Formats: sequence, C-alpha cells, structure tokens
Amino acid sequence: MAKIAVTDGMDDTAVSWLEQQGHEVAVASLSVDELMSGALQEFDAIIVRSATKLPVEVLEASRGRLMVIGRAGVGVDNINIAHAGSMGIAVVNAPRASTQSVVELTIAHLLSCVRYVARADRTLRQGQWAKKALKGTELSGKRLGLIGYGRIAQSVASVARSLGMDIHAYDPYLPPKVAKSQGTVLHTSVDDLFRQCTHVSIHCNLTDETRHLVNAERISSMPHIGADGNPCGRHIVNCARGGIVDEDAVSQSLASGVLTSVALDVFENEPVHPDHPLLQMEGFHGTPHIGAATVEAQARVGMDIAANVHAVLAGEACDFVVNDPVA
Amino acid sequence: MAKIAVTDGMDDTAVSWLEQQGHEVAVASLSVDELMSGALQEFDAIIVRSATKLPVEVLEASRGRLMVIGRAGVGVDNINIAHAGSMGIAVVNAPRASTQSVVELTIAHLLSCVRYVARADRTLRQGQWAKKALKGTELSGKRLGLIGYGRIAQSVASVARSLGMDIHAYDPYLPPKVAKSQGTVLHTSVDDLFRQCTHVSIHCNLTDETRHLVNAERISSMPHIGADGNPCGRHIVNCARGGIVDEDAVSQSLASGVLTSVALDVFENEPVHPDHPLLQMEGFHGTPHIGAATVEAQARVGMDIAANVHAVLAGEACDFVVNDPVA
Repeated sequence: MAKIAVTDGMDDTAVSWLEQQGHEVAVASLSVDELMSGALQEFDAIIVRSATKLPVEVLEASRGRLMVIGRAGVGVDNINIAHAGSMGIAVVNAPRASTQSVVELTIAHLLSCVRYVARADRTLRQGQWAKKALKGTELSGKRLGLIGYGRIAQSVASVARSLGMDIHAYDPYLPPKVAKSQGTVLHTSVDDLFRQCTHVSIHCNLTDETRHLVNAERISSMPHIGADGNPCGRHIVNCARGGIVDEDAVSQSLASGVLTSVALDVFENEPVHPDHPLLQMEGFHGTPHIGAATVEAQARVGMDIAANVHAVLAGEACDFVVNDPVA
Repeated sequence: MAKIAVTDGMDDTAVSWLEQQGHEVAVASLSVDELMSGALQEFDAIIVRSATKLPVEVLEASRGRLMVIGRAGVGVDNINIAHAGSMGIAVVNAPRASTQSVVELTIAHLLSCVRYVARADRTLRQGQWAKKALKGTELSGKRLGLIGYGRIAQSVASVARSLGMDIHAYDPYLPPKVAKSQGTVLHTSVDDLFRQCTHVSIHCNLTDETRHLVNAERISSMPHIGADGNPCGRHIVNCARGGIVDEDAVSQSLASGVLTSVALDVFENEPVHPDHPLLQMEGFHGTPHIGAATVEAQARVGMDIAANVHAVLAGEACDFVVNDPVA
C-alpha cells in the first residue's frame, strides 16, 4: 500500500481504482509554500496535471519516500525530470489519452483559419453579412509541414491527407522509415520544411532546442502560393506547447501581412493577458489551451495515469517512464 | 456565335475563354424590372449565380432566342427549371467546382461545434480565459448522419471516417450499393437516421420534400449519448441550402437544451437579419453562405459553367443539364 497525493484533480473513477488497488489517495492542491516545506515527504507518489510545478527546489524538499511522479497528460515541462531521475524518482506520463482530442482541435484550427470560421461567426453576431470579405482557400492541394512527427502529428497527417494535403515533416528523433512508410516527405532541416510549406503545424515538446523555433525569418521563408498554384497565404497552428512560437514575431508578421493566419491553443504565458496584442488581430485565432479538454480525453487520462503510477509502485514494467531514474 | 449575358459576375479567365470560342459576352447585372421587360430576349444564353432570380414570369418575358441558362454553382432553386424545360431552354449547372470547399467547411463546422472554436476565440478576445467552460467532445466514436449522399456527402464521409466517425446516410435517390460499398449504413427512413445519430449534416437540395426536414420532433429523437458511450449532446450542421432546417425549431431546441449546437452556413432568409434570435445563442455557429467562397472553387466554377454553356450552344453533349428541355 502506498500514499498518493493528487494535487491537480483526477477523474473519480481513477481515484476509486487506485483505492481498490490498496493505495491511500489524498486529493488536495498544495501551495508552493507547502511543497517547499516538504509536504510531499510522506508520499510515495504524486499525480499532477500542469498546475503543480516540481522544480529542483521542490524535489529536494520532497526527499523521503517519493518514488514516482505521475503527469496526467503529455508534456512534462512542469517537472525537472532529470533531477527527479538523479534522485531515483521515476516520472511517468499518459501520452495517449489526449491524442485524438489534440488531433481534432488541430484540424479544426487548420480548417477554421483558411475559412475564417471564428471571424464569420463574430461578424454575423454583430449583424454583418461579411460574405464578400471572407473568400478563403482550400486545404486540398496544399503542403502541410509538421514539426515533430510523433503519435499526434501522424494522426493529423492521416486526416489532412484525407483532405487532400501533401504531408511534410521534420523530426530529428524519428526513424526515417516511419515517415517514408506513410508517404510523408521527411526533411532533415527545419528550415527546409518552412521553405516548402504554406501551412505549418507544431507537434513537438518545448525544449531549449524548440523555444522560438517559429520565428520571423522562418515565417517569411514560407511560400505564399500553394503547391497547387493557388494564392493561399501562410498559416501557422500550435496546439502543442507555448513558447515554441515566438509570439512577438507572429504579431509582427501578421501586422505586416507576411503571415496570413496563426491559430494558437497554447501561449508563452497562460492565461493570456487581456492586453496581448494578438487578441486585436484579425489573422489570429485563439483557444484557451483546450487541446485535451474533452470528456473522452479526461476520462482516459485519469485511468491511464493511475495504471502507470500503480505499475511503478508495484515494481511492474511501465512503457511510460520519461526519465532515467537511477537505481 | 452567340450572345451571352453574365448577370452575377464571373472569373475573367472564363469570360475570355467564351470570347475565344467566338461568343459575345455582356457582363452586367440586370434588375428585376429589366428582366421583366424582356432584357433577355436578345440573348442566346444567360449565366447566373444565386442573385439573379428566374421564375416563370421572367422566363416568359425572355421568350425569343434564349436556349440555355447556366448556373455557376450547384443549387438551381433560383430558377424554375421545369418551366424553362417546357420552353425548350436547357438549364446547366457546375456541381463539381465547389465540392471540396463545401466538404472542408462542413468538417470545419463539425469540429468547431464540438470544441467551441468560435466561442473560445470570442471570449479570448474579450479577455476571458474560459478553459474550464469549454470542455468539448471528440467526433471520434460518434455516428454522423448524412441527409443526402451525393458527391459532397460522400467526401464528407471519407474525412469524417478518418476522424473515427461511423457514417450513416439517408438518400432515397441513391442506388443502395453506392453506400454499402463504402461501409456507410444506409437508412430507408429519415426518422430512423435521426434516431441513430448524435451528429447530423445536411447535403440535399431544397425541395418541397426537404423543406423543414430538420424539425423539433426529429431533433428530440436524436440520441445525446454517443455510440462510444460518451455524453456528447446533439449537433446539426447545414452547409447545403437554407430552409431545410426549421430555424424556429432549432432556436427553441437550443433554448431548451435539447439541441447542443447548430452550425449554419445557409439560412431561410439571406442576408440574416441582425435581430435573428439565433445570433444571440451560445450553441449557434454561423457563417454567411461561404461554402463555395474560396479562391479554388471560384476559379473552377467559372471555367466549368463556361464549358457547359458552350457545349449546349454548340449542340454538343453535356452531362450537367438538370432539366428536360422539350425539343
């Protein structure tokens, strides 16, 4: 039996399941002060989403019984996974639960950008019939560049292909045969991908390597004429992590007309400040980090992370350990 | 050489092509008074979009040389095609040009409805971070019911299937083997389809038979739990023709919570009146009849209708005559 802290909430079904395995589960948020004062010392495991931050200082303050950190979701940038590993703490995530939800939001944004769905709805509600101002373009016949080509990107590719798009990808961590086997053009340089694609969607982690990967220079290197010869402009979608897109560069590129549209579900600072310059721009399309905000994803993520945390506690094999905990 | 009136505009390339075939093309809108006064008597052909109306009275006032009416688009409800036929006038359309554009807008609306894309963008621009209020549902695992199963619906089915939806269809004019060969469940009654599907999209013509086909009773007969067991609510999309959806019934169903969302690109009266009750409702998603409003569709439709009108004038075979002109 282990003691498990759940600090950012979890589906009831998953809590009950952990209790049925014999664990004691404490569902309660912990303040930074509590974390820094060693509130986790008495726990064997902690399950977080993105709200609870676990930097070096908090991990050090948690020395004691802690052997596994569960992240109910994909991105682990709120956890210092290397330091956790050096302390022998395994970090597990639940990457599959939200895949389909993020894929569907990405396609929603791609289509909505080129057809002005949000602007059309907004102007209609304001009593305008803006049909003539809303001549869009088709995705069909255009090149979609995917930065990162993991589970989510591969599913985006499959739907985008059914819409008639040609798929390009850049992922330095992917065996080339994965992409080739699906008919995707794999680029060995991210600059090459931008130079080839009118539409780019982000599906990588936020790391030092990917911070501000989407910058002014790369945006301006994108073609604005589609592979089918139609003038479709340049479009960027980010449903992955804030910070990969340089928001200042995007604002300036929209203002100058170099960039036609940007759709962001994630931002450098969340919640977005009401005075953020992007919020005033016609070419901006925003959603408040709802990539995984579906009934289906939330039900799945609770059960997935419960199973993964239990596996580590029980000394069983787990495919979802994202760091290298020292023995 | 024939004289051709183009009253609702046409792509320059298509006008030039008709002139190269030896025709005289007059691009100018004609008022109802001019049409009723016989302005078309001196023309062999007229090419319209949806703005120019050609009812019995206008057709009668046009008796003279008129032998072909070209509709640069799909729907011919602005033309009395039976009466034109009785006068020996062929009506041709250009149904393929806008197919992909309408398909993409339909998928955009389906995805945007279940993920609140327009509302998310609207509230973000208002300075709100409404993440918690915007928990949506996935399309994957749900049943999509298609009313009408022609070119557009079949392409919608293909993309929706790639998103993980199960496809149902109702089309009394379709050979059953067409649907079966694609794995689509074909219903012999439209009521059956509504009783099976949480998501319904309209892809038929407006006729006496289909007017107000989407009514309060059918909406309330839809399941609100998805085929995958998740509570997804009820969703209607119409990118076909206004009038097929009973807007009063939809407003009341949204107000009572029976209907979760409706996305309309077409309306019973266009432009929509600024006081239309739907414009105030959260579950409404509107676009101002932009299904065919893309660079690609407009380029294709001009060339398609020019070719079809020329074929009739030249006495050649044309697959796109939609009435039975008497010899």
